[in-house]
Amino acid sequence: MQTLPGFRDFYPDDCARRNYILTKWREVARRYGFVEYDGPVVESMALYEKKSGGELVGQMFTVGATADPGSLKGVLRPEMTPTLARMVTARERDFKKPMKWFCVPNFFRHERQGRGRLREFYQLNCDIVGEPTPAADAELIAILIDMLRAFGLTEADFAVRLSSRTAWQQFFIQSGGKPEDEYEFFQIVDKAERNPPEKTDELLRKFNLTAQAVLDFMRSKTPTAELVPVVEGLNARGLGGFIDIDYAIVRGLAYYTGVVFEVFDRSKNERALAGGGRYDKLLSLMSDGKVDLPALGFGMGDVVLANLIDDVPAAAAQRDAWLKQERACDIYVVVAKEERRSDALALVQQLRDAGQRVDFPLTAAKVGKQFQTAELLGATRAVLVGDEWPQVKVKTLATREEILVPIGEIKTALGQ
Amino acid sequence: MQTLPGFRDFYPDDCARRNYILTKWREVARRYGFVEYDGPVVESMALYEKKSGGELVGQMFTVGATADPGSLKGVLRPEMTPTLARMVTARERDFKKPMKWFCVPNFFRHERQGRGRLREFYQLNCDIVGEPTPAADAELIAILIDMLRAFGLTEADFAVRLSSRTAWQQFFIQSGGKPEDEYEFFQIVDKAERNPPEKTDELLRKFNLTAQAVLDFMRSKTPTAELVPVVEGLNARGLGGFIDIDYAIVRGLAYYTGVVFEVFDRSKNERALAGGGRYDKLLSLMSDGKVDLPALGFGMGDVVLANLIDDVPAAAAQRDAWLKQERACDIYVVVAKEERRSDALALVQQLRDAGQRVDFPLTAAKVGKQFQTAELLGATRAVLVGDEWPQVKVKTLATREEILVPIGEIKTALGQ
Repeated sequence: MQTLPGFRDFYPDDCARRNYILTKWREVARRYGFVEYDGPVVESMALYEKKSGGELVGQMFTVGATADPGSLKGVLRPEMTPTLARMVTARERDFKKPMKWFCVPNFFRHERQGRGRLREFYQLNCDIVGEPTPAADAELIAILIDMLRAFGLTEADFAVRLSSRTAWQQFFIQSGGKPEDEYEFFQIVDKAERNPPEKTDELLRKFNLTAQAVLDFMRSKTPTAELVPVVEGLNARGLGGFIDIDYAIVRGLAYYTGVVFEVFDRSKNERALAGGGRYDKLLSLMSDGKVDLPALGFGMGDVVLANLIDDVPAAAAQRDAWLKQERACDIYVVVAKEERRSDALALVQQLRDAGQRVDFPLTAAKVGKQFQTAELLGATRAVLVGDEWPQVKVKTLATREEILVPIGEIKTALGQ
Repeated sequence: MQTLPGFRDFYPDDCARRNYILTKWREVARRYGFVEYDGPVVESMALYEKKSGGELVGQMFTVGATADPGSLKGVLRPEMTPTLARMVTARERDFKKPMKWFCVPNFFRHERQGRGRLREFYQLNCDIVGEPTPAADAELIAILIDMLRAFGLTEADFAVRLSSRTAWQQFFIQSGGKPEDEYEFFQIVDKAERNPPEKTDELLRKFNLTAQAVLDFMRSKTPTAELVPVVEGLNARGLGGFIDIDYAIVRGLAYYTGVVFEVFDRSKNERALAGGGRYDKLLSLMSDGKVDLPALGFGMGDVVLANLIDDVPAAAAQRDAWLKQERACDIYVVVAKEERRSDALALVQQLRDAGQRVDFPLTAAKVGKQFQTAELLGATRAVLVGDEWPQVKVKTLATREEILVPIGEIKTALGQ
């Protein structure tokens, strides 16, 4: 019996590593005033078909019911934006703008497997809804950067490649392109660095454009008028060093409209850590024009991030310190005399009620073995219940210091 | 566009209420030295068919792939025990016994809807593996009680109905029943309070038993030899007041073997909040006899618990205080002069870096309106960046006290 291919078991050590990432994401989101939301894991297929492009439809898992096959047109969520769009457009008047919302959902994609590609994974999503100015783009990219800095990652470890769909749009229109051909053009640009120039030339011929013209624009490092205030907003925060202007970034999905960006690690692996941008028209599209709000957001997966943390020694050390702290037991209650088990249980209860993390032996064991267990669990102190009753011995495990304390004063002795 | 029936959106307020429950569950688990694990949302159908009984198979959601229909025999997990059994039996030697494991997964069941019945819900699962003695039963029921006490619920609000499959087993065997008929007998007992006595008499005829005999035993309040040490362990912890001996509890699932229990609220609603018991043979069954470890556990869902918290004023007040604290912004940075926006951004970044929850206006707004937003967000203090630069005004919003602070001393002034 195993998991299905591409799915993960989280044994306690794995679960703690996953929780480290989810906990840090939540911490940073709160610092930025983002509020958490979530949606169902199962959504209707129609929700994803409605979104323009439908890029992910072919990678989706369908959901039926054993009792009533065919009764349900459900799928497992492969991304969050359609759910967010549904939720926001249904109740947009209830929320003050700009809305800063985040979530940490699991997603499901029926992809071929490989390093960093799983069929179920977690992804942080941060979105700002209702703010058209570049101040929102700067705030969003700032939180994206701080989401990675929170793991001990620095300018040496990753960069945000900042680009603009608007810039490419203007380039295309000024070259005589028509708006209805834009998305096809963006797809060609997206592949221009990977395809041989001849292939790109061929694809661009109908637009009277050349691979050279596209590649020249792609390699210019000058921020467009749209990007200047975004960069200024990040510079003012001291985060400018994380930004590379890079017009090679156009993003695959159809719905992006303005500033777009991707985050890559700076090692030779160049792994993509996150990506996002503006999608000012999507809410209107999803609500048949009823709600027309500008919006922007990004997604950051847990798998590639965890791999990068493994590779960066300072980040790995910070994580390991967190894990150690997280797992540690505060106090181990040693039952030195079985006749005192009842008193020991009362003490355990009292300390747990006070919020301490407390463990003890469920059955009779030698005192030496109990101390071994205490060390194994990472306890900082042991309280020994035995012959000295109604006094107990409090032992600091690191220093082996011992003091004798009347049971009535135990909470004071433990510094509560 | 709506959710599918039985599935929930979690708007920020709903999400915070959900997180309140998940957070408290995790807190209490840590106090008891339980460690968190998790498994995939999608599991193989075979995993659930293997478990004896297969009670949930008819309620399961199946999972397929749009790209490759029929390639996958997956289902959405309806419960955790089979996943836990798979994980433990695969690596049992890696873990010191007793293992105290918990998780807070979402489950999926294709049930008819109703109050407290959803198709996706969360459920705390706590299990102890590898400890056959009643000390483990007492520890498990203690954490179950404290999981509810953590929400401000008391003896007046809920009770643990404690029973024993072993007691019914002995009753049945002493009355001349055969072991292979046990499960059928338990099913009759399970329904004996709901069915009319004539119906129960009819069902019991083949076992030479009467409804009266079963109901008499059911209503006896004397703990059996098996239950006595469990009750003692709970009394020693001061938790005896939460326990009612109640042999009407037999639990529906086939795999329980010893102590079983359910938690009900004490109002006239008598809602079931949690249930569990010993399943000493299941790991052996799931591993074809390779791993034979005693085990016990319980599950507690989020939906009924949330309803009960709503109904108990002290519990609702505690939750509301938590929600208020959780949502609050620490500091609102007021941009009183647009020329100082850059300096304000640097300040925002500095405070967020220090771990404060900070918000500010993304675009120009009147100072009075900015203070309104600060109040709305629950900020405790505002820092005003304007004419006084390089000094800033720090205002305590509750008292309206203001002090002028040089920007270089802002962190000290904010008490960090």
